[in-house]
Amino acid sequence: MNSDDLKNFVDTGKSGAEIYALITELFPICRSITGDGFRQTMKMLQQHIPLEIHEVPSGTKVFDWVVPKEWNIKDAYVKNTQGEKVIDFQKSNLHILNYSLPVNKVVPLQELKEHLFILPDHPDWIPYKTAYYKENWGFCLNHNTLMTLEEGDYEVFVDATLEAGSLTYGELYLKGEVADEVLISCHGCHPSLANDNLSGIGLATILAKTLQTVPHRLSYRFVFIPGTIGAITWLSVNETKVDKIKHGLVITGVGDAGTITYKKSRRGDTEIDRAVTHVLKHSGQTYDIIDFYPYGYDERQYCSPGFNLPVGCFMRTPYGQYPEYHTSADNLTFIQPESLSDSFSKLLATLNILENNHTYLNLNPKCEPQLGKRGLYSSIGAYELALLWVLNLSDGSNSLLDIAERSGIEFTAIQAAARLLSTHKLLEHQPISATSSMEESLN
Amino acid sequence: MNSDDLKNFVDTGKSGAEIYALITELFPICRSITGDGFRQTMKMLQQHIPLEIHEVPSGTKVFDWVVPKEWNIKDAYVKNTQGEKVIDFQKSNLHILNYSLPVNKVVPLQELKEHLFILPDHPDWIPYKTAYYKENWGFCLNHNTLMTLEEGDYEVFVDATLEAGSLTYGELYLKGEVADEVLISCHGCHPSLANDNLSGIGLATILAKTLQTVPHRLSYRFVFIPGTIGAITWLSVNETKVDKIKHGLVITGVGDAGTITYKKSRRGDTEIDRAVTHVLKHSGQTYDIIDFYPYGYDERQYCSPGFNLPVGCFMRTPYGQYPEYHTSADNLTFIQPESLSDSFSKLLATLNILENNHTYLNLNPKCEPQLGKRGLYSSIGAYELALLWVLNLSDGSNSLLDIAERSGIEFTAIQAAARLLSTHKLLEHQPISATSSMEESLN
Amino acid sequence: MNSDDLKNFVDTGKSGAEIYALITELFPICRSITGDGFRQTMKMLQQHIPLEIHEVPSGTKVFDWVVPKEWNIKDAYVKNTQGEKVIDFQKSNLHILNYSLPVNKVVPLQELKEHLFILPDHPDWIPYKTAYYKENWGFCLNHNTLMTLEEGDYEVFVDATLEAGSLTYGELYLKGEVADEVLISCHGCHPSLANDNLSGIGLATILAKTLQTVPHRLSYRFVFIPGTIGAITWLSVNETKVDKIKHGLVITGVGDAGTITYKKSRRGDTEIDRAVTHVLKHSGQTYDIIDFYPYGYDERQYCSPGFNLPVGCFMRTPYGQYPEYHTSADNLTFIQPESLSDSFSKLLATLNILENNHTYLNLNPKCEPQLGKRGLYSSIGAYELALLWVLNLSDGSNSLLDIAERSGIEFTAIQAAARLLSTHKLLEHQPISATSSMEESLN
Repeated sequence: MNSDDLKNFVDTGKSGAEIYALITELFPICRSITGDGFRQTMKMLQQHIPLEIHEVPSGTKVFDWVVPKEWNIKDAYVKNTQGEKVIDFQKSNLHILNYSLPVNKVVPLQELKEHLFILPDHPDWIPYKTAYYKENWGFCLNHNTLMTLEEGDYEVFVDATLEAGSLTYGELYLKGEVADEVLISCHGCHPSLANDNLSGIGLATILAKTLQTVPHRLSYRFVFIPGTIGAITWLSVNETKVDKIKHGLVITGVGDAGTITYKKSRRGDTEIDRAVTHVLKHSGQTYDIIDFYPYGYDERQYCSPGFNLPVGCFMRTPYGQYPEYHTSADNLTFIQPESLSDSFSKLLATLNILENNHTYLNLNPKCEPQLGKRGLYSSIGAYELALLWVLNLSDGSNSLLDIAERSGIEFTAIQAAARLLSTHKLLEHQPISATSSMEESLN
Repeated sequence: MNSDDLKNFVDTGKSGAEIYALITELFPICRSITGDGFRQTMKMLQQHIPLEIHEVPSGTKVFDWVVPKEWNIKDAYVKNTQGEKVIDFQKSNLHILNYSLPVNKVVPLQELKEHLFILPDHPDWIPYKTAYYKENWGFCLNHNTLMTLEEGDYEVFVDATLEAGSLTYGELYLKGEVADEVLISCHGCHPSLANDNLSGIGLATILAKTLQTVPHRLSYRFVFIPGTIGAITWLSVNETKVDKIKHGLVITGVGDAGTITYKKSRRGDTEIDRAVTHVLKHSGQTYDIIDFYPYGYDERQYCSPGFNLPVGCFMRTPYGQYPEYHTSADNLTFIQPESLSDSFSKLLATLNILENNHTYLNLNPKCEPQLGKRGLYSSIGAYELALLWVLNLSDGSNSLLDIAERSGIEFTAIQAAARLLSTHKLLEHQPISATSSMEESLN
Repeated sequence: MNSDDLKNFVDTGKSGAEIYALITELFPICRSITGDGFRQTMKMLQQHIPLEIHEVPSGTKVFDWVVPKEWNIKDAYVKNTQGEKVIDFQKSNLHILNYSLPVNKVVPLQELKEHLFILPDHPDWIPYKTAYYKENWGFCLNHNTLMTLEEGDYEVFVDATLEAGSLTYGELYLKGEVADEVLISCHGCHPSLANDNLSGIGLATILAKTLQTVPHRLSYRFVFIPGTIGAITWLSVNETKVDKIKHGLVITGVGDAGTITYKKSRRGDTEIDRAVTHVLKHSGQTYDIIDFYPYGYDERQYCSPGFNLPVGCFMRTPYGQYPEYHTSADNLTFIQPESLSDSFSKLLATLNILENNHTYLNLNPKCEPQLGKRGLYSSIGAYELALLWVLNLSDGSNSLLDIAERSGIEFTAIQAAARLLSTHKLLEHQPISATSSMEESLN
């Protein structure tokens, strides 16, 4: 199987179902930026892909930050005077303030309320809240439950530990023909939230699994990390490797029913930016392409000025722009296999461009070659026009994506034309860039 | 007469009539990409301009192509069993499939139909069809006639030859003060079709005739060629000369009533592209400027990547966008002297820009010169504004066209201002480019 | 007081009133391009700022021009046969054709009319007319008065002198920390006209007065000159100094009720152009930014190709676009303290950008620094976003104005973020440009 066919050989409908199944499996786990939840998640991914699991000890200095203590939780509840659990971690891991300190005491309702988080606008939903960097204890609950709490004392119990340990991340490197790398990064630190970001985790896993079965020119590096601190840690630990990254995507929130949003890299005009734009433009669907801004997901770190990597962010509805975001409503019914499938398909189409965006040389550059005698030309149609565009622009300064952009013809048609012309010896790979890639892969 | 006045000294109304008369004269001839029809056409042009007629033997290799056998035809018809000519070449040379093989046989209607070409949507019109590169015989006819043909045998007779001979083209070089050339190219391989492209042939001929009577700074090269194979042959035979071509236009379809369409060169920002754009923008008429694409007329060859010449295509309604295109309805009533005159006028205005697009130096660059004491300034008006723009931008980096574009003032007003300021010693020609042109003309 | 606070420390409402008072004081004087009216105006400004008054003798060659004779006028009138003054200079100095020759004779109405200027469209208004460079005598009057003049002889009396003298201009240099200069230029040659250009004179004077009380990084040069000939004279006399001018504004017509219009410098993308654009864009008010054209005020001279200085023109309604322009209706009721105040405020905001548009270096460029541990980060808001933008773009290639433009955040917020990050040692001044400025100030 040739990498040229990346986009076409996969049954993305089936992949959507496979991603959804994986998300369902991972959903119940209580993840955080450190601890056994994240660790267990990585181990479950190992059933699909040969992920390497890395541990970075608490206290390790990573640029301006320090790897925090490891947080683990077994149980947590609040009991009323009747001994009834009015908030119960066993029912939803969102009930616990993520990174909550252990606690075991009786407090009056008034004091308890200072440690409770609710969403008045959505009285049925539990919010997702964290306390990574300012120590606190607390619970999240739905507003309706809060309304039922009567004055009196409550037993508060959090069986958690916050101790020296390590930060866990997973990494998978798929060697290609050349050393140039595509970075696929997604955060996995959220507990039972489906779209943000089990959808990214699921999609990236199935993407990696798929790429293992296809020859690919480029190398791929998948990183599954806790958000922010995980990206910072990964960049710190792998600082010398990042110059191999020629394209990258942060993948997140790819399972909801919204249209696709692509946030461009800080540079704004890199090949990945252009490739995603091309795919979306030719999708026939609505989409949104937004400029880089220094807030959002881990592209903030990859695009910090000291790295300035060509990494964009691929998502559907952006964070914070759907009410379910960071609440118990971001659950398995909020995401659809169809959306996952659509996201997957567009990512494959994007990778197909990166894999095949070669620059060719027209071997018969003076006047048009006689296509008719080669059986390549009948009356003019989209097919012949693609041939003529590839011939006309293959002067060594235009890649196939350049040609697709200027002609307005979809990349795959331009790619097919180039392949056909090559077969007829009318076109050849631009030698220089081929050499450069080969040299790089010797490193 | 000074080339500065190119645009103004011609009575373009009279020229339109002259072009129309020439087209009328050429209309009956049965032209093809080779043969006596094209040859005779060139000879008729010699009555107007000292055209050199060139012959390139069949079999000559021209880049990826080979000059084809020469085709000549004397007569052709289809007779029914009553001996009546139901299709007769003598009534319209469009009736014969251009490049049809000779044939002399009797065939039943069913077999005959495989060799007949009609236009069901325009049942009165005869289509124009060719078979240059796949040998065949055939006839074109209107749909109504086809409907009258009864079952039975038909005598098919084509008295044509397809033999080693030559491809003919005409060329005229008009030497100017400098060796920099303007290429004017038009195809003349179509039989009785008026707009496509006798209009181009006629206009180019009268343009050449006109330029012979005016001093001109630039040199002009007119080529009258069969489409595609003719351009390829000309480029192959003249490969070493093309670096003198600094501007070029393919002229075609300039007689219909539609608005003017200009298709830019592959480079897209050359002086010819900007000059035509400027003329159309200031014409007060509607127009269409379109980007280069590698299909259409002979700009395909001139703009192939191995040449990439600054050649655009000047036309009115583009090929294929009017129903009369390549049918018997593209006749002498489809074109008008007024349209020819308008096309001619805009081409002269374009050439006027190319002739006079000099770069000047303001000799008094610090502050404005005192125009009042030279009688150049009363109250401000368009006239004074042109003077001020020329003075302000003539720092050696802006040509008159640059100034016209930035100021929004028509080129001729800018040109007049520059001339006036030169007379008053406030401006002088930029010396460097003058030298460079002189050097070139010594080559 | 720090120059950072330029925009905020001034009570611009009070300044508007102060400017208006100064204009009121200057209004009655009969100014011209030379003579005692202009001289007296400069002396009155010396009561506010330590202006240097320069005199350039008549006959001095200044580039293509010559400093004209000095004009002074004591009285002028036209009397009818009854001895009544039907036109009286004492009632309005606009009544005299500015630079009118002395005259003392009796003429019939018919001859008188050849020397009278009126505005038929505005029969109550006196036009403002000049005769600097073609010697003539004449009077301006309102159309209604003209209608009352009966046939008969009129005594015409102009007690004026046109003799060798000098052209006067005022200049004030305010030394800053660096030698880089901001030029503020305004013309003061008009008699009793309020908006054009006492408003400019008044605003520039109070601006200079204000800047004297604030430490400022840049040096400021204020020039108060007669229009055109004054700018030409100043440039001629100060030709060697102009390379210190890094930014400049011609200030005129800043008192009317119209929206602000900024006319860009000839270069079109200089820092002053971008700074004014930024201020207007974030003003929440309507405004108009127009491209440079070589007509208008003294930017014509500053932007002549031999100088090409980064000087734009700051005004409200442009000259000629309000009917009161150059008439007696451009009086003290046509301008408002509120408009003067608004113009002043926007100029201060512009200067604030020029003063503080530094380029910083993120000292922690790899990944984001941990803002939380420094108390700089709670939940994301406009404030945090400004911090993140400054950090992300401070790679040495972006100035604060670049960051403000790209982020869409107002300059002052970006400036505040940079200051805060500097305090926390997360940012430092880009050293190179600092050095370069220091070197320059040693010159």
